[in-house]
Order: sequence, then C-alpha cells, then structure tokens
Amino acid sequence: MNETTKKADPRKLERLVSIALQKAGVPQGDAELTAVILVDADLRGIDSHGVINLYNYYIKGIQSGRINPNPDIQISCGSPTTASVDGDNGLGFVIGHKAMSETIRMAKDYGTGWAAVYNSNHFGAGAYYVQMAAKENMIGLLFSTGGTTVTGPGGTSRLVGNNVMAFAAPGGKHGPFVLDMAPTMAIANKLHMLQWEGKSMPEGWAVDGKGRPITDPNVYFAEKGAILPLGSTPSHGVHKGFGLLLVSDILTGLLTGDGGSMFRRKGEESHAFCALRIDAFPSGGGFADLMDEMIGKIHEAPTAEGADRMRYPGEKENEIYRERSANGIPLKQNVISGLETMCTELGLSLGDIWR
Amino acid sequence: MNETTKKADPRKLERLVSIALQKAGVPQGDAELTAVILVDADLRGIDSHGVINLYNYYIKGIQSGRINPNPDIQISCGSPTTASVDGDNGLGFVIGHKAMSETIRMAKDYGTGWAAVYNSNHFGAGAYYVQMAAKENMIGLLFSTGGTTVTGPGGTSRLVGNNVMAFAAPGGKHGPFVLDMAPTMAIANKLHMLQWEGKSMPEGWAVDGKGRPITDPNVYFAEKGAILPLGSTPSHGVHKGFGLLLVSDILTGLLTGDGGSMFRRKGEESHAFCALRIDAFPSGGGFADLMDEMIGKIHEAPTAEGADRMRYPGEKENEIYRERSANGIPLKQNVISGLETMCTELGLSLGDIWR
Repeated sequence: MNETTKKADPRKLERLVSIALQKAGVPQGDAELTAVILVDADLRGIDSHGVINLYNYYIKGIQSGRINPNPDIQISCGSPTTASVDGDNGLGFVIGHKAMSETIRMAKDYGTGWAAVYNSNHFGAGAYYVQMAAKENMIGLLFSTGGTTVTGPGGTSRLVGNNVMAFAAPGGKHGPFVLDMAPTMAIANKLHMLQWEGKSMPEGWAVDGKGRPITDPNVYFAEKGAILPLGSTPSHGVHKGFGLLLVSDILTGLLTGDGGSMFRRKGEESHAFCALRIDAFPSGGGFADLMDEMIGKIHEAPTAEGADRMRYPGEKENEIYRERSANGIPLKQNVISGLETMCTELGLSLGDIWR
Repeated sequence: MNETTKKADPRKLERLVSIALQKAGVPQGDAELTAVILVDADLRGIDSHGVINLYNYYIKGIQSGRINPNPDIQISCGSPTTASVDGDNGLGFVIGHKAMSETIRMAKDYGTGWAAVYNSNHFGAGAYYVQMAAKENMIGLLFSTGGTTVTGPGGTSRLVGNNVMAFAAPGGKHGPFVLDMAPTMAIANKLHMLQWEGKSMPEGWAVDGKGRPITDPNVYFAEKGAILPLGSTPSHGVHKGFGLLLVSDILTGLLTGDGGSMFRRKGEESHAFCALRIDAFPSGGGFADLMDEMIGKIHEAPTAEGADRMRYPGEKENEIYRERSANGIPLKQNVISGLETMCTELGLSLGDIWR
C-alpha cells in the first residue's frame, strides 16, 4: 500500500518545497536553502528526514506559531574561534547552515571554529552540515539534541534526548566519509514504522514504564516506554551510549545556557558545530590518499559466510545519492499524498515534479 | 590468590615510579610527570592502566629500545589553533601531557585548540589528559588509536584499533564529568582477565577467525579472534561503534599522516587532543550550575527494580579517587610482586611505600 509509485526530479521537488515554504511565510533565500537541505536527505536515501516531514512538521509548525519563519539569527563571538548563536526559534535548516558557515569562516581564518546554537528547531539530517565542511577540505563535527525518548542504564522513563552526533571528512576517489548517528538503539520514527507495519522490535531496543524489556512497539507508545542508549545492557556497554548522549547535551545545551535535552530552557533544540581545517595541520598533507587507503582496507577485510562486505560510513548514502541524482527520487504513495494535501491547503498545484 | 594485601601511599608510590623511570634513563621531570599520571589511574580505580604496567610495558619498553626515554618532541603549528606533534617515540604520558598543554595554551589565546600527535606510545588512561582541560574551565576531548584487536561489521579478523575517545567537562559540586571509553564491546585486557579467572565472556563481545560468535576467551587468543565494535550486531547498531572507531582513526591517524590503527606508519600510537574554553562562548556563563542540574536529573531518574541508581560518567571514579587519596591505593599481590621484581632488576629497594 506504500509501494513506490513515481520518481521525482530532485530540482523540481526542491522548487516545490521552496514555493511551499515561501507560501508559509519563509523568505525566498531561506526557503531555497531549506529546500536544498531537505531534498538532499531524500537524495541520500535518508527518507525519514526528507520531504516526508515538510508539511506536518515544518509548515504546520510555522502556521501554528511554533517555528518563526523569519528569524533574526544572532551570532556573538567570544573569541576568534568560538561563537554562540541565538536561532530566534527559526527553521533549524537556516540556523544550522548559518552556524556551520560561521565555523567554516573561523576555521579558514584561525584553523578551527566552534559554534554553540540555541533557540533552534529540528534541522533535518545532520549529514548535510558536516559535509559543508568536508567540501571545504575540512573535517566537520556536529552535535544536536533530539527528542526526549531515551532512558539511562536501568531506567524506566524518558530522560534524555535521542541526541545526534555527525562527522564528515573528505575522501579521495571514494567520496566523503559521513557518520550521522544517535548513540541509541533506535529512533522513535523507526518504532512508529514498525508499529505501522505490525512488526516487533529486536530485543534490547526499549523498555516499558517499569524498565522491563519490550519488543512490541505498541507498548512503547501506549505505556510511555523508553528507548535504550547504544549498548542496551550493562554487559554490552549501555553506559557508553549513555555517556555519548550526555556529551551531546553538554556541547549543545550546557555551552548555550539551555541545559540540554533534559531542560530545553532556550527553545526546542540546541546544536554544536565544529570545523577543522585539514591543511592547518602541518602533517595533514596526504589526507585524501590516506582516506582512500583506509577505505581500501575496509573493503578488502574478510567477512563471515553470509555477511555483506564491510562499508565505510556514508558509502551506501553516497551510492544512493548518485543513483537518485541520475534517476530521480522514488516517492512512496503516502509521501505523494502528503504533498498533494499540502498543495491543496496552501493553494498550490503539485505540478509536474516527475522525472 | 590475588586479593588485596596492602595499601600504598599515593605520594610514596609516585616517588617509587619516578625513581624507577629515572633508573631506566627517563629525565627527572618526565619521570615525575609520568609517575603522577600513572598513579592517577590507580587513584581513580582504573587499575588496568596504572602501575601494573610500569615494569613490563613501559620500563622494559625503554630497555628494549622500543620506547625512547629522552625524546625530542616537536610541535609545529599550522594555524593559531592547530598543531602537529611529533612525539619522537617517547613515553605517551610525556607526549600526551605536552600536546594537551599546547591545546590549552591555544584555547587560552584563541578560544580553541587542536593537536594531532604521531610517533607516540601508550599514554595510560585518557581521563587524565581531558581533565587537564576541565581543571582550566575548558572542555577536553581526546582520541587515540588502541591495539588492533577489533573487527568491523560481519568481520572475521582484527582490522582496527580498540580506539579510545575521552571527554571531560568541569562540574560544580559534583566533580568533573569524565567519559573515557572505547566504542567497542571490551578491551583485550578484560579478556585476559576472564581467561585468567577461567570465566567466559558475555555473548556478543567477540568472534573467532571465521566470524562466528564466541564466549570462550581462550578461543579469542588461540584462534586470533576479534573483538566487536560497540553495538555488536547489525540490529543493535554495530555500524555505529565501527563508525566511531574510524572517526578516532581519522582524527589521530589521517591528520598526522600516520594512517591510523590499520597502518601505523609513524609509530605505535597516534592521538588527537582538543581544548575548548567555556568562557569563550558568550552563552557559556552558567556552565557549572547547569552541569550540577543535569547530574541532579540523572540521580533523581527512577530505575527498574533491582537496578542501581544512574550515575554520570566519572562519578564512580571520582568517589574512588577521594577514598584512595585519603586511605591509600590497595595493591594486589601480583602488582606488589611485579614492583618487587622491578626493584630487584633495577637495583632499587621497594622501601616503605605503605600507608
């Protein structure tokens, strides 16, 4: 019922997204930028973070007053390489792009740059922002709060955000290395999908309100269950995943005065961005070649019978990006219906967005 | 047979370590510094990274020519906030301390600092170095290669280092937040310990040379098995642990021209250090209070029946540090015997190191 029906042309889809955002009150430049970042997630195969969320999350968020379509983003630098950014409750895409651009500027001038961002909203897939740095021959790092759906070791209730960390570095012939992950067992979206498909979760992903392991996603939603940090159990390193979630909270929420995912005193989400200029390290000269050699080792590594060959982080997404750029983005029927509803509501026509 | 017999006085133990290192040819200042960092691990309860390794690993390493006791450490800055550090194959403690000090200096002057370090050796517990930053009201970050004992998703052989990442931030009344971990299921030392105790490993920690799950540590050692990245299996996020291991390799090995744990072209270990001045963020003012509030939330979080209360990373170590500073460091008989052997070999007397 949700099978692929049609392939959208990426540029036409971007244009539709931009026009819809402008209809909702987003200035043209910000709308175009948001469209590029949102469609980029679909191009990379991260459909859960792409146009599927455009209407219900972002545009309705603007319409309800939850998101400010026309923010006055303020950057204050406390040193040549550190900035605090007040996002004025704007779209996370616009704020994230501006903050990452600022760290890249600082890194160009001084070697490195860090930005701590508050009063922001969901910015889509983190992969986009760290790749902005990789395209400038820099390493990009990003941390962000996520939805408060995760508990700690032994916990029974939602305590901490499904906080994100992302990392990108330029590759040579193999394309960029992009790790974009939450140090948890799953994101709530995945649980929604399993619920919708009538499937159960793997053991170890979540607990119910008494801290007992569950595999039924319905129980997670009905009884306010909680997702577990990466590691899942004490003998499998749950304290490591929990620690990494808190590192994100510190870099995003404590450096900004927001408090992080347990408090959110200064807006819905906070983020941290870092750019690190590779040629600012006297020893960094052969970086791209070494990346290719490292990836070569990963590709050559023997794997067990029946297991796939190993891949580097971002490899699958790089492949999907090339394929979808050439052949279009497959949109499932529910996504198409959502876009159609949005067009009707906004007085737009979906038009011919197809490849 | 390995029960605690005696408690050593931390200062006297430091003095013994320093004198032994000097006997092995380490200059006095470097010997004293190494002694402080090594005994600090014992004080924090990280016995696996403390004086237990002094003779067999570090001093014999110097005696065999594997470690240079008197290195000429070279720091070259490519920008105001980035340095490459050639450790000249010295003791990792001396190199790590120098590199972290340099990042702290850069952060004082410019807000942040990064150092990429090659031609180094094992530096003990990473917690010490990141806490150097925390003591200066900075955030400290560290990455390091570790022993090549880990495979990737689906893998059958040792491919990548048991690479370390550490993070520290100053707390208020609760003491520093210190996360010092490898994003893997275990370190080889732990497998050695289980083997020695005749115990089995939890499922999911390691595979044999054909990639099949094993729980017998003897199989790991006899058949060149491999430890798994944090996550352990595809459904539990093994690609996340693997990705984090590679991030360490990139920041340490690729920025230094070494190649990281799969290559080690420039010495045994490479590291990366970062310091981030909290008051260089205009929004960073309430940091210590927010840290205490965050820790308060963690302490108040409800846990399942039979589960311990939650702790923040470093909490247990902070408690052990206070207790051992007051009452002495309990040394097991095998450690005492090792120190006695060392003293005999070096023509020293163990003397009265006891509390």
